Amino acid sequence: MTADNHSELKRKPGRPEGGSDTRDVLLNSARNLFIERGYKKVTTRAIAEHAGTNIAMIHYYFGSKEQLYIAVLDETIKLIDDLIVEHMNNPHADSMRDIITRHYIVMSEFPEFINLMRYLQQNSMETGHDFYLDTVKNRLLPHFKTLLDNMVEKGYISQQTDTNKLCLIILSVFSQPFSVQPLFGGEIGMENSLQYYTGLGEFVADFVEKAIAPDEA
Amino acid sequence: MTADNHSELKRKPGRPEGGSDTRDVLLNSARNLFIERGYKKVTTRAIAEHAGTNIAMIHYYFGSKEQLYIAVLDETIKLIDDLIVEHMNNPHADSMRDIITRHYIVMSEFPEFINLMRYLQQNSMETGHDFYLDTVKNRLLPHFKTLLDNMVEKGYISQQTDTNKLCLIILSVFSQPFSVQPLFGGEIGMENSLQYYTGLGEFVADFVEKAIAPDEA
Repeated sequence: MTADNHSELKRKPGRPEGGSDTRDVLLNSARNLFIERGYKKVTTRAIAEHAGTNIAMIHYYFGSKEQLYIAVLDETIKLIDDLIVEHMNNPHADSMRDIITRHYIVMSEFPEFINLMRYLQQNSMETGHDFYLDTVKNRLLPHFKTLLDNMVEKGYISQQTDTNKLCLIILSVFSQPFSVQPLFGGEIGMENSLQYYTGLGEFVADFVEKAIAPDEA
Repeated sequence: MTADNHSELKRKPGRPEGGSDTRDVLLNSARNLFIERGYKKVTTRAIAEHAGTNIAMIHYYFGSKEQLYIAVLDETIKLIDDLIVEHMNNPHADSMRDIITRHYIVMSEFPEFINLMRYLQQNSMETGHDFYLDTVKNRLLPHFKTLLDNMVEKGYISQQTDTNKLCLIILSVFSQPFSVQPLFGGEIGMENSLQYYTGLGEFVADFVEKAIAPDEA
């Protein structure tokens, strides 16, 4: 069940079998299990089984369960951060729409990841808490702030806009819907589907675009 | 330290001393302690001491620690629900601004109450979880939806607006800022003060007003 069994042929002593696909499969399995059960209740054995590989692969690619967990957090947050970084230094008129719509599409694949982040937010003693906070403070927030400030400078956002508050509002709308969906989403027509979140992304993009538009001269 | 010691004079057997102020003082003390320590770690003795009264008063006004907790949840959520209900059936052009700005002012008094609600959201076995969900599903959400639908009908919100998604967006912006403020609010100029939250309310009101405005004919 490893990603490429034919690599057996070229395997050297001390070098585990499995290509870089194995790393991705392990990351996905780990993300699913960490979301479902929480960090403490997940064993490396369970992750290896879910991924169809063995524990040695986890040690080879990540070192330890904790390092695998940090990699899951890092690479999942990076999916969103990458959207922002792509536009950050040279935004165009549709940058905000592009980031918003793609954010919801990306997150619709693992909507409950937000609750894992929320758990880390609230529990300062938990593994991953410091990493999470550091990532938000030193990557996500400064990147998003840079994007917004550059959009103001280029005239895509109204000059008088308080970009700190705008940052707060947009990031609130990025996270909260995924968190409430399982609880009372049904009351307001939410569904845990790509189709629903794609529509939500379009709605939020329209909403934000209207709200930030500079007044016509 | 009870609210009115002179009531001692008119006290009858079986009727505890203390006016209705005592009930309010107990509610405030209980809210502070439940927010600070969580439901389980708070004793009725600690609440009574914090309120400057005695445990008998808790039993008299609320019955039990659990009933006091439910009263705290009920009456705090009601502060926000009341803002909505006030405008719900007969909204005017400034209804949304009024609700938004007052929401942040009210919540600035106990910003960490949002984290208590968030904890209840995520822990289905916790005391208060069912009450919280029921309140959101059967009071807050239907009231807010009614308000939005009536605002569309009266022409204050663009006709094509999906009021379910609008409801989701506004409620996200109502809760999330209070939750992230202690964590990384400093990075984006947030302060735990009436002044900051008043300004945030104005910002969000402007933002939402622009976003929901019907297109000019």
